[in-house]
Amino acid sequence: MKTSAGRFFEDYKLGEVITHAVPRTVSGGERALYHALYPARHALYSSDEFARASGLPQSPLEDMAAFHIVFGKTVPDISLNAVANLGYAEGRWLKPVYPGDTLRSESTVIGLKENSNGTSGVVWVRSRGFNQRGETVLDYVRWVMVHKGDPAAAAPEAVVPDLKPFVAAQDLVVPEGLDFSRYDFALAGERHRAADYAIGEKIDHVDGVTIEEAEHMLATRLWQNTAKVHFDATNRSDGRRLIYGGHVISLARALSFNGLANAQMMVALNAGSHANPCFAGDTIRAWSEVIDKAETSAPGVAAVRLRLVAVKQETQPLVLRGDDKKYLPGVLLDLDYWALMPA
Amino acid sequence: MKTSAGRFFEDYKLGEVITHAVPRTVSGGERALYHALYPARHALYSSDEFARASGLPQSPLEDMAAFHIVFGKTVPDISLNAVANLGYAEGRWLKPVYPGDTLRSESTVIGLKENSNGTSGVVWVRSRGFNQRGETVLDYVRWVMVHKGDPAAAAPEAVVPDLKPFVAAQDLVVPEGLDFSRYDFALAGERHRAADYAIGEKIDHVDGVTIEEAEHMLATRLWQNTAKVHFDATNRSDGRRLIYGGHVISLARALSFNGLANAQMMVALNAGSHANPCFAGDTIRAWSEVIDKAETSAPGVAAVRLRLVAVKQETQPLVLRGDDKKYLPGVLLDLDYWALMPA
Amino acid sequence: MKTSAGRFFEDYKLGEVITHAVPRTVSGGERALYHALYPARHALYSSDEFARASGLPQSPLEDMAAFHIVFGKTVPDISLNAVANLGYAEGRWLKPVYPGDTLRSESTVIGLKENSNGTSGVVWVRSRGFNQRGETVLDYVRWVMVHKGDPAAAAPEAVVPDLKPFVAAQDLVVPEGLDFSRYDFALAGERHRAADYAIGEKIDHVDGVTIEEAEHMLATRLWQNTAKVHFDATNRSDGRRLIYGGHVISLARALSFNGLANAQMMVALNAGSHANPCFAGDTIRAWSEVIDKAETSAPGVAAVRLRLVAVKQETQPLVLRGDDKKYLPGVLLDLDYWALMPA
Repeated sequence: MKTSAGRFFEDYKLGEVITHAVPRTVSGGERALYHALYPARHALYSSDEFARASGLPQSPLEDMAAFHIVFGKTVPDISLNAVANLGYAEGRWLKPVYPGDTLRSESTVIGLKENSNGTSGVVWVRSRGFNQRGETVLDYVRWVMVHKGDPAAAAPEAVVPDLKPFVAAQDLVVPEGLDFSRYDFALAGERHRAADYAIGEKIDHVDGVTIEEAEHMLATRLWQNTAKVHFDATNRSDGRRLIYGGHVISLARALSFNGLANAQMMVALNAGSHANPCFAGDTIRAWSEVIDKAETSAPGVAAVRLRLVAVKQETQPLVLRGDDKKYLPGVLLDLDYWALMPA
Repeated sequence: MKTSAGRFFEDYKLGEVITHAVPRTVSGGERALYHALYPARHALYSSDEFARASGLPQSPLEDMAAFHIVFGKTVPDISLNAVANLGYAEGRWLKPVYPGDTLRSESTVIGLKENSNGTSGVVWVRSRGFNQRGETVLDYVRWVMVHKGDPAAAAPEAVVPDLKPFVAAQDLVVPEGLDFSRYDFALAGERHRAADYAIGEKIDHVDGVTIEEAEHMLATRLWQNTAKVHFDATNRSDGRRLIYGGHVISLARALSFNGLANAQMMVALNAGSHANPCFAGDTIRAWSEVIDKAETSAPGVAAVRLRLVAVKQETQPLVLRGDDKKYLPGVLLDLDYWALMPA
Repeated sequence: MKTSAGRFFEDYKLGEVITHAVPRTVSGGERALYHALYPARHALYSSDEFARASGLPQSPLEDMAAFHIVFGKTVPDISLNAVANLGYAEGRWLKPVYPGDTLRSESTVIGLKENSNGTSGVVWVRSRGFNQRGETVLDYVRWVMVHKGDPAAAAPEAVVPDLKPFVAAQDLVVPEGLDFSRYDFALAGERHRAADYAIGEKIDHVDGVTIEEAEHMLATRLWQNTAKVHFDATNRSDGRRLIYGGHVISLARALSFNGLANAQMMVALNAGSHANPCFAGDTIRAWSEVIDKAETSAPGVAAVRLRLVAVKQETQPLVLRGDDKKYLPGVLLDLDYWALMPA
């Protein structure tokens, strides 16, 4: 067989390191497309001048775009036959990605557990993205439920990795040189600094965006994510294409500009659930909750830990779960991340 | 409140200068997207070699793209609660924008007049776009009708600015170095120079383009225009998304290539009306009328004043108004601009 | 008349050389868009580092993108009034195209034959694309059936060019410096080298992509292809927009990554038929057949001649023609090309 149908549960071995294919060089083209696909307005990612005034050499690629590129490369090896993307943990952005950088990805299998039904199992991987200098730009854990190809394959010894519930503030990596001490709040779009946000505060981000098929496919392809559920309308019996969960993250993050315009850089991905599927025609809104705040050693730079929630039409804002403790049916995303903000 | 719901009529003060947020650095990515979104073929904006042969350092960003970027930044402060975009005047492109340039915008309130109904008013602003060297790249006046947030707010003293009906030929700014004396008509696509056009001449631009939702949203987002009517299908009771008027301008301008391939650079926006709304599914055609012609001091460069009209399907070509003097229902745009052409 | 309605059959003269308009400079923007529009993953076109490890100065523009740009320029002069695009022959990519290059096109009329119905005729052209240094980057023959504008126009002397059935292996041009002797199969995505493919071997490329209107129009516009059937839904009585045949080629070529990840560079277009029309909503799949293999003089580089077939939903895979020797109704494309691969 020359083609690949993707890996099944029994194909993963604990400790195995998988080199993912197809390195990718980024340019101003990826940045422009990111701005066409998402209502992204964070100034640090829009203006080279703003980035330089913040101590960076130029405007980096959006952190979520770097995530999508690193993640997309893992799909053919990790999640082509995934039943579900179950979670993320211990994610950290370690180096900004700039136009001209070339990214590649690698994953290590850190956990395996067959489901009691014997037809699928959960695979935990730690995935890393590297630039052309071999520097790690992103590091995160995700776990997926994967079908078994052969139901008779023996179950591996169950190993469930011990994952931190969130990245501790002292483990956050602030990009070298970052300095918000001369931050221009007028150009950034809002006047609120970290000190102005209270832990527990919730922010409804006001705006909504209705998603089209062409848009989520353009985005998902751009990240070279090949999962067929996103592209092939004949793949599901209802003829619908499931929207890549990362598309919803980028959309919600961009919508959060209205209220969190100064939450400039994403530095950690603590946890994330794609609570319900998203389809073309859905109108996405977002709200955030301030979970924690911390200082950093960089001049004028604070860290804010945020819950970012994406919901679809007719969903009550600022409410995550029903009386049954389950996510409301209109909740699409529950993401926990750290962002850097003027202190 | 951390979020902004936009300004209302009573929030504007005469003479106030508003710094608009989110500067933007442009690259080859914006140029490629412009060519994907519009059937743009003017050679000066397509080829670095053609631009250099015309005395410019390289191919600039399309003039309308520069307009959209400068305009998009004004939306959150000027037109988020606008009932209607009423007009443009005294617009001039003052410096070409090149890949690597960073644009920001600023508006001055130059007129205010509450409507007799007491629930809304008209705001006139002069908006300016600047590059990273602080040079003004674009300067124009627009006026919008804006809701009052508080119907009880006192009406300001009515001030209606005295605007020129069009930019005089002697006030046009020709980019430094522009030289059409060695213009290659074969590469540009047509053989007609300014001398070949007669004042009063009308040109039907032949081609039509049917618009999709994804296209106008990609375009409007690319310019970081956040007006919710363009993106949120739940915003109107009919579930339709109103297409950004600037999208129609760019589409019509690109279609005008067939007949006006040598009307290379837009240098002034004299006036403009978005006569009727445009929605996805509409098929757009365009026609032009030569209003005036003028000489410039640059070698081989003439100026041509043009009316550019966009119409939708089943609209009689080359006719603007009905017997009642009103725009025909199928007329979407009536734009009056100056372009530079080989003399 | 200032506008062009395109040429008719009687407007072509044997031996005539047509300079096509609108040169185009490419950048990282075109590359990013290519990756957004097609599931393209060939590593040489995705990574500057991979390209450099293969002896090239950086990652070139996708070969099909170069083809589309050169081809798109010919449309206003060759195929605006074409009834059908009948075939391609003797196509060769002669120089890689890099960001910053400016392309222009030229065609020579090499054959003319009026149809017996007297209302149309076949025009053969040899089209060439040049970069800013005047080097030929692409050279191919295509023939189209074109309407007569005046049915009374006299038929030209029939001249049918003598075209090679395919480009001979010894006529393939390998880019200067190309070297696959240190090829990284893990980064490229598959382990198969030319030696692993057998002549006659067929490969079903597994994945499918459902096409949206916005996507094919963005792509076709990006290449400045102005044929109205692709853009104007009012152009056909059924209200459908015909998808540019080249869009199907790029889609099928990108899908062929799964099984032919190492068929990196397209170097010759031997023949091609757009067997049936493609419309938005179609789900495209692809399969390939190995027709021939050859050595080249470049280190570690072999040539593989491939048939690439695109089919739409509910079409039997790996079958080209029915019992009547005609293409099956679901076959969209039958393309014959040479690609370069690790030996």
